[in-house]
Amino acid sequence: MSEALSRSYREAGVDLDAADRAKARLAALVASTRDEHTLSELGLFGGLYALPPGLESPVLVSSADGVGTKLKLAFLTGRHDTVGRDLVNHCVNDILVQGARPLFFLDYLAAGDMDEEVVTDVVSGVAAACRENGCALLGGETAQMAGFYAPGEYDLAGFIVGVVERERVLDGSRVRAGDALVGIASSGLHTNGYTLARKVVFDEMGLSVDDPFPGTGESVGEALMRVHRSYLKSLLPLLDAERLHALAHITGGGIPGNLPRVLGRGLGARIDRGSWTPPDLFRAIAEGGGVADGEMDRVFNMGVGMIAVTPPEEADEVVRALLAAGEEAWRLGEVETGEGVRYA
Amino acid sequence: MSEALSRSYREAGVDLDAADRAKARLAALVASTRDEHTLSELGLFGGLYALPPGLESPVLVSSADGVGTKLKLAFLTGRHDTVGRDLVNHCVNDILVQGARPLFFLDYLAAGDMDEEVVTDVVSGVAAACRENGCALLGGETAQMAGFYAPGEYDLAGFIVGVVERERVLDGSRVRAGDALVGIASSGLHTNGYTLARKVVFDEMGLSVDDPFPGTGESVGEALMRVHRSYLKSLLPLLDAERLHALAHITGGGIPGNLPRVLGRGLGARIDRGSWTPPDLFRAIAEGGGVADGEMDRVFNMGVGMIAVTPPEEADEVVRALLAAGEEAWRLGEVETGEGVRYA
Repeated sequence: MSEALSRSYREAGVDLDAADRAKARLAALVASTRDEHTLSELGLFGGLYALPPGLESPVLVSSADGVGTKLKLAFLTGRHDTVGRDLVNHCVNDILVQGARPLFFLDYLAAGDMDEEVVTDVVSGVAAACRENGCALLGGETAQMAGFYAPGEYDLAGFIVGVVERERVLDGSRVRAGDALVGIASSGLHTNGYTLARKVVFDEMGLSVDDPFPGTGESVGEALMRVHRSYLKSLLPLLDAERLHALAHITGGGIPGNLPRVLGRGLGARIDRGSWTPPDLFRAIAEGGGVADGEMDRVFNMGVGMIAVTPPEEADEVVRALLAAGEEAWRLGEVETGEGVRYA
Repeated sequence: MSEALSRSYREAGVDLDAADRAKARLAALVASTRDEHTLSELGLFGGLYALPPGLESPVLVSSADGVGTKLKLAFLTGRHDTVGRDLVNHCVNDILVQGARPLFFLDYLAAGDMDEEVVTDVVSGVAAACRENGCALLGGETAQMAGFYAPGEYDLAGFIVGVVERERVLDGSRVRAGDALVGIASSGLHTNGYTLARKVVFDEMGLSVDDPFPGTGESVGEALMRVHRSYLKSLLPLLDAERLHALAHITGGGIPGNLPRVLGRGLGARIDRGSWTPPDLFRAIAEGGGVADGEMDRVFNMGVGMIAVTPPEEADEVVRALLAAGEEAWRLGEVETGEGVRYA
């Protein structure tokens, strides 16, 4: 495009030069995630991924998600290289709980004005997490949406595709009353509850992002932006060894909103409150906002990022394997007949 | 969630009841797109899709896209059931040009306030287009992003996954100098150029959405919201018969920005301006905004939604087949040695 045309188009609010510059930098980030299965370069209409050979009855598992209002923390702190990791890790966990390992990922990043540095930071986080999870960043869309977003703001969504053998799909059918629940620690709020957390921390506690966050030794910005963890590397060996009956990723809705979904009909869970202490981060929000326990449980993960459902006789070994993999893991409760979650 | 909790959470800007109601309606829409390959119901963490059997060397083709600022027309007219069709059809065309047929689709819909009617309208458009393209709506994310979007506004993105046999991938390697270019008519602006089109039509021509659009017999709203067409049904038989060397979906960047991408190295194209008359819609924008031809060509599709590259001896038969399938199609030009696009 000639400079004159570009200038005239820019007057209508679309800066194609900046978009082109950003795209060149994105291409390098995307290239950093390529493996032997990725057949296309960025710039074609669709990304190409050769299905790994040797699968008998492959089932594709796919999920779409956003970062939610955790993005507001990135806007407040000016730190944009972690939200992409939040997004990828969240998506990886969402398909992991059905037994799938990730193949590829695509992102959608929309802003009013395309700030080249911010775009590169965001996508560098996406690409880094893709590499960590052994997943190709196959493409994505960077949309300049004049008049949609406030200056300096953006929205970010992601889409993941993974694969699992049909007979290995975790669908709840293996779960039995008496199965053990093993909790695995979260790193923080992950990507849920930020609308309430921001209201409490900024409006009610009157803190700003650079203030110390009570009881954490971190700033408010650091504490609230801790990266959503991926549990892929710790859980894949246990999935491969068929030691797990189900997995629940604890996202919006907390344990009561997510665990029952994977237990199958006629089954509920007893959660032993005494088995762990929710991290200070959650206690400070509960106290600062006068938020009741029941609401905390339904909005936040309360320190439990993932729950593994195992045969009772396997539970101690599963906990040991997770500890050896560097996780904080413990027996959290038990599957029981009934429905929903009961705290004891 | 109890009514009290829900009320307290709503005060922080997240209406979970409305989200739940909308989700129940979405579940029915999603169910309407299920086929024998979809293994999961909405509500699990990831959607499950069994890869169709009988593929020798399957390559997954994936693309992410948004609707862009065409969404502003939906906000202005209050008509929300077509933007989902724009999105799905755009994505279907994007993977079709690499030879792939769609398997499944996921959407991401983000709004500040979740208006149940609007969400249902948007997703009903997505589901309708998925059914029309024989593609499962495998899931998606409906994100309530308080403080991100103006009241009544939203953003919408989509992700598609399709499949093609590895030896059937269209990657430009089949294209030769002397190949014929066959143009297939667009239905309107499709989903590109809306930032400029809105500036010309609303700011410079001073029209509103209910005014007649010059030369079209439609209102401004109707003319600018014509649905982005899917070319799947017309082109699939020609792909199956291996009559096509390449396909180019004419999106942002127009013919010069999209056609060269699929021709391979050392090849360009001659476009015969006399072979078609750009529809009145484009002429009115060019005249109303004093937009030069070169810029029109680079921002809009100018009435050409898709270009098929065929061996010269096949071109007449390809045009006949497309006409028989109900398309408007014609010989648009020729592949030649060189680079880029030359208008003659």
